[in-house]
Amino acid sequence: MNNDLLVIIGGDAAGMSAASKVRRVHPDKKILVFEKSDYTSYSACGIPYFISGLIASADELVRRSPDEFRAKYNIDVRTQHLVQQVDTENKRIGVLDKIKGEEFWQPYGQLLIATGAKAYCPKDITGHDAGNVFGVSTLKSGINIEKYIEQHKPKTAVIIGGGYIGLEMAEALLIRNISVCIVNRGAQLMNTLDPDMGQTVTGAVQNLGAAVYLGESLKGFEIRENIVLNVITDKQKLQADMVIFGMGSAPNTAFLEGSGIALGVRGAVKVNAQMQTNVPGVWAAGDCTESLNLVSKQHFYVAMGTVANKTGLVAGSSIAGEAATFPGAVGTAVCKVCSHEVARTGLLEKELKKLGIEYVATCIDSTTRASYYPGSKKIVVKLLAEKNSGRLLGGQIIGEEGAAKRIDILAMAVTHNLTLQNLIDMDLSYAPPFSPVWDPVQTCARKLIKSI
Amino acid sequence: MNNDLLVIIGGDAAGMSAASKVRRVHPDKKILVFEKSDYTSYSACGIPYFISGLIASADELVRRSPDEFRAKYNIDVRTQHLVQQVDTENKRIGVLDKIKGEEFWQPYGQLLIATGAKAYCPKDITGHDAGNVFGVSTLKSGINIEKYIEQHKPKTAVIIGGGYIGLEMAEALLIRNISVCIVNRGAQLMNTLDPDMGQTVTGAVQNLGAAVYLGESLKGFEIRENIVLNVITDKQKLQADMVIFGMGSAPNTAFLEGSGIALGVRGAVKVNAQMQTNVPGVWAAGDCTESLNLVSKQHFYVAMGTVANKTGLVAGSSIAGEAATFPGAVGTAVCKVCSHEVARTGLLEKELKKLGIEYVATCIDSTTRASYYPGSKKIVVKLLAEKNSGRLLGGQIIGEEGAAKRIDILAMAVTHNLTLQNLIDMDLSYAPPFSPVWDPVQTCARKLIKSI
Repeated sequence: MNNDLLVIIGGDAAGMSAASKVRRVHPDKKILVFEKSDYTSYSACGIPYFISGLIASADELVRRSPDEFRAKYNIDVRTQHLVQQVDTENKRIGVLDKIKGEEFWQPYGQLLIATGAKAYCPKDITGHDAGNVFGVSTLKSGINIEKYIEQHKPKTAVIIGGGYIGLEMAEALLIRNISVCIVNRGAQLMNTLDPDMGQTVTGAVQNLGAAVYLGESLKGFEIRENIVLNVITDKQKLQADMVIFGMGSAPNTAFLEGSGIALGVRGAVKVNAQMQTNVPGVWAAGDCTESLNLVSKQHFYVAMGTVANKTGLVAGSSIAGEAATFPGAVGTAVCKVCSHEVARTGLLEKELKKLGIEYVATCIDSTTRASYYPGSKKIVVKLLAEKNSGRLLGGQIIGEEGAAKRIDILAMAVTHNLTLQNLIDMDLSYAPPFSPVWDPVQTCARKLIKSI
Repeated sequence: MNNDLLVIIGGDAAGMSAASKVRRVHPDKKILVFEKSDYTSYSACGIPYFISGLIASADELVRRSPDEFRAKYNIDVRTQHLVQQVDTENKRIGVLDKIKGEEFWQPYGQLLIATGAKAYCPKDITGHDAGNVFGVSTLKSGINIEKYIEQHKPKTAVIIGGGYIGLEMAEALLIRNISVCIVNRGAQLMNTLDPDMGQTVTGAVQNLGAAVYLGESLKGFEIRENIVLNVITDKQKLQADMVIFGMGSAPNTAFLEGSGIALGVRGAVKVNAQMQTNVPGVWAAGDCTESLNLVSKQHFYVAMGTVANKTGLVAGSSIAGEAATFPGAVGTAVCKVCSHEVARTGLLEKELKKLGIEYVATCIDSTTRASYYPGSKKIVVKLLAEKNSGRLLGGQIIGEEGAAKRIDILAMAVTHNLTLQNLIDMDLSYAPPFSPVWDPVQTCARKLIKSI
């Protein structure tokens, strides 16, 4: 009986994309999903906009509720169920029913691991779990932050970490009229950008009114009655009514220890192009898996909703017996911080150096529309290309409204081994409200091709 | 002496891109440009925005003036000089100095024809040259229209033709509080779109307050003292304080008759990938040339600033002795009409039928941002793909702010023979302010791939 039972661990993007796909192919197959929270299929990326108040209710971030999955799709979703163990030999998983406080073994025929990522939390620091200290990863964590702001009206916040989440949270808190300090261990904000572009982001964030402390590490907290009063760094003490961790995320795979399921980069599950793990009958998808970087041809860890949806769909197809593959990703990402847009794809200078690839790089300043057209905004484009071939290896864009979506052009170019000349030749769209006659990415390619 | 003299006919995008490129490579080469108007290097695409008042002065549309080219670049630009004849046997051109009224022969060593396009004008209809009837092609024509509106305060305008220029002019005149009728011979606005998408545009334009008459032809004018009072169509009489021709444009090549320079599609100059004509020592570039369509592999006529700049640059490189080629175009175009954005690339259904290519097509409705994110707007995407291979053949997008620039993704796909699956796999950028987690172009590809 259980040979046909599909059990899915995790009810967000990857898990429910897979479940929905399997259901479309096999209307009668039994699908059982264990989700540790109360929510399924929500947009974690939307959390900062709920906190800022731009989105009125957390419900708007939920695409489909557990009830919907049960009623409309006949998918048996069990919320508040935490999977603690996978026993691949006996094809069963150890589950904790968090409501009843009971543990049980659940057999499976096919298993999909879609447990996502968890926000990094410095557990060795006393106060990391204080009442006004928050990570941002699950919808629950977002709701907690919003509730705290509403009830306690904090005036100051310290954000530890200046990556995507840190900066999006900075925007959210600034909109809520909370004064923001960002403490960043590295020498630049957004270490997914090259240092020169990171510096541009730092300037932009400072202009928005946030204090930015670079090359500075969290050392501890001053706490009273489980509430952090001050953040202690290696350089200073910062008063804080609330603390947000934006220190990156890691795959949620600790429970797989001893399961025999192979882990790779940063502890993410190793999978093939069909999203199969090394154990027959076990798939993995989403933020808990590693991906192939199509530019470096090496595996890397990327926790993005886009990849989670794609890999979930492929896992679902594979489980359902259809041919499908996930070729990999190129590390495309985009982020908005107030009026600024930041985007990147492909490889960074430091990655190219590490790979021993000879490259050239340059930046240009241009405008998002024809320079004479009202509402034309600044855009900075940086391109990296292979020294002799001119093959595009990476691109970064910083600008104001209308700038960042151009990263898709560069993502396509790095994915399909296009050269700077291909980019220059490309018949991109132009009219004055949309672009200069040479799109900024082409202007940058025209400058860079001279150094090849 | 003259063997080294480069003579360029036409001082706009293509001609001056070429001139500038040659100057960069050969600082001392003699370059002589004949331009029939007073202006060089201006953005013809910006004319509607000058007429609407969005751009305060026509000067803003001029990138570099004749004086600048003379002083800074040592390029001898002769404005108000009309080239009437090309004598390739004796390597000379017949020029009319419009100011002095004198004709003369100008010898050349190398010749570049960059005479652009002219707005189609129905010369057989009496009144086509009346005082309140305008074409929109040169900066001068734009200045004339603006001056007329300023002086005569027209309340009504009839636009003949519902293509890009017609619709951009409709927007401009609506902004100037002029009531607009569009008379369009074909059954849809924008015949560069498929009928279903054209219908969506018609609805959008009507919602803006313009009257649209489809399947209706211009028959004549009622004129008093060289001023059109009424436009007569085959179906009705329309009162008009001014008339705009937006009936498309044609390559400006009539003066090449008898020159031995081969013409192709719609009378545009035939060129190879180096922008050389069939006559040694004679190049052509910009809106007066035909282009290779990279999807149909056939030549087509496209009058776009992007192509003019690219082909001008390639012609300049070739003239300067550098290796450069223009591979062709895919017919990418974008247009804004008030809050609506319209974009297209690749081939239409009617073109695919004509080529005998089996295809599938579908449309989807989506949103420009995550559906819950404020400011998320409607977007309609249509994709056309080859029946068995799934190769993308064309795409069309209609939507509101933030919709149309996605056409670049599709332009790259049709250029590089990518399939729907490639599009689905693409690591496109996502964050709630920029896109749904599946970009609308991917959502459309996911729908269409089911019918392959």
